[in-house]
Amino acid sequence: MREVVALGVGMTPFGVSEKTCVELFASAAWEAVQDAGIGTKDIEALFLGNVFGDFEEGQAVMASFAAAQLGIPHIPATRFEGACASGAVAVRDAYMLVASGQYDLVLAGGTERCTVMGTSLATRTFAMGSDSRYESPTGITFPGVFGMIAHMYADKYALPLSRLKEHMAMVAVKNHKNGCFNEKAQFRKEITPEHVLNSAMIADPLQLFDCCPFSDGAAAVVLTTLEKAKKMTEKPVIIAGAGQASAGNLGDQRDLTLVQARRISSKKAYEMAGIGPEEIDVCELHDCFTIAEIVATEGLGFFNDGEGSYAAQEGKTGLQGTIPINPSGGLKAKGHPIGATGAAQVYEIVKQLKGECGDRQVENARIGITDTLGGDLCTIVNLILKRGW
Amino acid sequence: MREVVALGVGMTPFGVSEKTCVELFASAAWEAVQDAGIGTKDIEALFLGNVFGDFEEGQAVMASFAAAQLGIPHIPATRFEGACASGAVAVRDAYMLVASGQYDLVLAGGTERCTVMGTSLATRTFAMGSDSRYESPTGITFPGVFGMIAHMYADKYALPLSRLKEHMAMVAVKNHKNGCFNEKAQFRKEITPEHVLNSAMIADPLQLFDCCPFSDGAAAVVLTTLEKAKKMTEKPVIIAGAGQASAGNLGDQRDLTLVQARRISSKKAYEMAGIGPEEIDVCELHDCFTIAEIVATEGLGFFNDGEGSYAAQEGKTGLQGTIPINPSGGLKAKGHPIGATGAAQVYEIVKQLKGECGDRQVENARIGITDTLGGDLCTIVNLILKRGW
Repeated sequence: MREVVALGVGMTPFGVSEKTCVELFASAAWEAVQDAGIGTKDIEALFLGNVFGDFEEGQAVMASFAAAQLGIPHIPATRFEGACASGAVAVRDAYMLVASGQYDLVLAGGTERCTVMGTSLATRTFAMGSDSRYESPTGITFPGVFGMIAHMYADKYALPLSRLKEHMAMVAVKNHKNGCFNEKAQFRKEITPEHVLNSAMIADPLQLFDCCPFSDGAAAVVLTTLEKAKKMTEKPVIIAGAGQASAGNLGDQRDLTLVQARRISSKKAYEMAGIGPEEIDVCELHDCFTIAEIVATEGLGFFNDGEGSYAAQEGKTGLQGTIPINPSGGLKAKGHPIGATGAAQVYEIVKQLKGECGDRQVENARIGITDTLGGDLCTIVNLILKRGW
Repeated sequence: MREVVALGVGMTPFGVSEKTCVELFASAAWEAVQDAGIGTKDIEALFLGNVFGDFEEGQAVMASFAAAQLGIPHIPATRFEGACASGAVAVRDAYMLVASGQYDLVLAGGTERCTVMGTSLATRTFAMGSDSRYESPTGITFPGVFGMIAHMYADKYALPLSRLKEHMAMVAVKNHKNGCFNEKAQFRKEITPEHVLNSAMIADPLQLFDCCPFSDGAAAVVLTTLEKAKKMTEKPVIIAGAGQASAGNLGDQRDLTLVQARRISSKKAYEMAGIGPEEIDVCELHDCFTIAEIVATEGLGFFNDGEGSYAAQEGKTGLQGTIPINPSGGLKAKGHPIGATGAAQVYEIVKQLKGECGDRQVENARIGITDTLGGDLCTIVNLILKRGW
């Protein structure tokens, strides 16, 4: 397999937008193309993550229209859907096809326009990431799923729930702080633990500030071979490892605090990259809820099982911590346009490795990892990126 | 690139089903796995085409649940959407990843459950394959699009509309006749030209029998390398060529009778296979409407532009014709579970090349092509398959 480089990245501001999914993606794509120093005519294929374009805008087969919007209407253009991991699935597929020689230069990414649905409809629609045969009839939603995980986590590790809630609050505080330094983040306002613990109850024990927002936005990545990239940049960011794994519905997954798919996916990515978690300098992971960040830091191997919550409390995941998690602000503060999130994580890691992150820069970041979760813990994608200089 | 074989194929009966999309796909997949002589544990990744699982069943991230249903919950499982070409897009992606050495054995296919929506809602929902910004506000639906194409075709080639309608009727008559010999077809009843010409008007000049039905069903293909396949079968069906191309919305496409994306996609597939249309023995193409079959036979190079309608009239596309088109009955009689259709076309071509088609067998079929269309002519996939013995 050939070495593959994320040659250029682009991302819209996350938040509330009047633009359509296709227009949002085009904005991110133009930025990625300029960052890469190429023309759109150089793009051989398009890989687009999107979850609910049909519900949001009445738009199916979106990838074709995205290609046309970029002035390259005839290239193979495909939409990928893996719930909130859709953008990551698209980037991984694109990566594999460049690595293996099917294409030399492609555009991948994701786009979503969640706010057009309104909060109630969005929560109901997102719940389609649960198994419609065996889970949805119970009325479960994602806040409910992660509320359950928080309870199971507290019970498993004999942590009083009030204590866990304090630790979870520190995840929100940290990510909001990071978001202040990210000009593209949806929320750029510091919060205190009290903000979290006094906010509205959503799904016990998760309160409003334990939850990420609904967002509109898009992100894009230009991928090419290292050989080609060497002629165009002195700072090629290499995709060193990639993993994807699935799981059945929650009833099949036994211990929800462990997220089996993540363990399989990240193991694959680490093996490909030939490194372990201790060599990761910076991580963007799927903090759709504060408890999700805690279990992800364990699943990715940064902390032992049961120790992630203490690590959050102790500041180990802050910008100056032992393993800086979500310097971008994460889904929590940067925002979560679901189909775009995986690609936006790649955007942040590429910027971090290149040292272009200003006040949120992780010092001397050389290797980073992304972690994107879709559905009821049933799709996970991990990508490891490293400096090629 | 390595040579890739369609080692096994499976397909549910098409029609009306009480099963969910996941259950339908599992049925097709088990048949494909048995046909391939493998176990599901041999499957390294899953590629699933599906268009509207969310609208039909409230189900997103369907590929993960499909993998779990097959007892392999942890493999990478991805959903692909390219409107009615979704299944074909999934198979092509799977093909490329096996060809390039990323995987050695994978399962690809598609599933859909259109009838659960009812006819009116289905027509409205399918119209999401049009550009939601510039086309959908006009109220256009797919029967409308293909009605326009029929008018443009008649005008361009100075064919009286009444004459074109007679030619189109012969497409329906032929496909219904073929469907009689297909035990999995939705409609197994011969019709006459009078049935077509006396049926209800849908979108002038298209009448009811010019239109394919709404259907439930699934199809699946096991793909592996020729090297592996040689140890398992004496009749390896090789994927000799593959193409995919896109187009913008109708307003960007100029001459709708030419379907530009098809010309680009099929050219790529023919070039990869190193053959021309004259070497194709059997073809499964996207006859969502009778006029669609006529323009596709021209776009694939079987007839000159403007001659496809006469060819249909003269019986050149029948089972004993110069180029048998849609021996399965096509979308028109076999049925059109949209996300499954591309994979079902592969199913038919594989069966034809192996000589397993009974009364609908095309004699001595050695090379076949599939043609799948998604959206407003904006996604096309072509696959060329040939005998490897």
